[in-house]
Amino acid sequence: MENGTRNGRGFTLWFTGLSGAGKTTISEIVEHELRNRFRKIEVLDGDIVRTNLSKGLGFSREDRDTNVLRIGFVADLLTRNGVGVIVSAISPFKEVRDQVRRNIGEDFIEVFVDAPLEVCAERDVKGLYKKAFAGEIPQFTGVSDPYEPPAAPELHIKTDEEEPAESARKVICYLEELGYLRPVEALNRA
Amino acid sequence: MENGTRNGRGFTLWFTGLSGAGKTTISEIVEHELRNRFRKIEVLDGDIVRTNLSKGLGFSREDRDTNVLRIGFVADLLTRNGVGVIVSAISPFKEVRDQVRRNIGEDFIEVFVDAPLEVCAERDVKGLYKKAFAGEIPQFTGVSDPYEPPAAPELHIKTDEEEPAESARKVICYLEELGYLRPVEALNRA
Repeated sequence: MENGTRNGRGFTLWFTGLSGAGKTTISEIVEHELRNRFRKIEVLDGDIVRTNLSKGLGFSREDRDTNVLRIGFVADLLTRNGVGVIVSAISPFKEVRDQVRRNIGEDFIEVFVDAPLEVCAERDVKGLYKKAFAGEIPQFTGVSDPYEPPAAPELHIKTDEEEPAESARKVICYLEELGYLRPVEALNRA
Repeated sequence: MENGTRNGRGFTLWFTGLSGAGKTTISEIVEHELRNRFRKIEVLDGDIVRTNLSKGLGFSREDRDTNVLRIGFVADLLTRNGVGVIVSAISPFKEVRDQVRRNIGEDFIEVFVDAPLEVCAERDVKGLYKKAFAGEIPQFTGVSDPYEPPAAPELHIKTDEEEPAESARKVICYLEELGYLRPVEALNRA
């Protein structure tokens, strides 16, 4: 698609990956940059969603899928009204991610935030892996529950090989290439 | 507020009232008119919400409140991004409607669609009142569950006293008065 043709259109950046892979870290840098450059941004992160959309849902496959579809429903409503939406969700199952992709259409941008399980477990920012390996958290993605990686994500980021700022830059560049975002040079020239 | 100052801003039209009072009928006429005159409209009606946001919720007070808060959360996201949102929901409890009002702020427009219970039961479009009076539907609003009317709705429409088209016209005029919508004459002059 020609650069610029999607200018002003909404999009959904969907960050998927294991706990500890770096979804939130990267998405927060992206959010900061986008707020400086894009009129309308909404973030649907785990806490907001658990509180406002999915209270009562657990971690069975069905409940996880319901949660992801619900986030996708809201992301779609916003995207088609010109909003840039940032979603950070483990969203481990391919089928339901693809369902969200079909609903949102070409403005759905899947960002696979990828790091080996050992790396995520080593980071263990929230102390969850330790508990999961000790069997204290049932159905923990990557340990006792599956994670199905995307087959063809728009962006595949390997967070064990680069810094978060570099990963975020790739996301921003991708948005510029597709024309959702004007390059900074263009803004300066205008 | 001066006419026109809210031009282009989002809003939430929140239609509350008993089953059969006429919420859907009026909101559909309003929707049709708005689509012709306002760029961005989203309708959050009962079916859409039950399928996409609130599957699994029942009719206890807690579940009803959760349902209303969830609709309100999505309506708020859309409203603050410039979308005109139409909600039709019995939403029987004042406290939780007022919570949504506080979240959305001055762009929340409560439309009390009011008809006496006897009139709603007489219409009985969906055949629900017959079942409710026979005790076949527990917790049916107005029959076996309370409806708390708004104390100070932005619009109070009495559907036993006027036709739906007349009620819809009042809603449209209200949006024009507040400047969310340019009067048709102004459009013609432009």
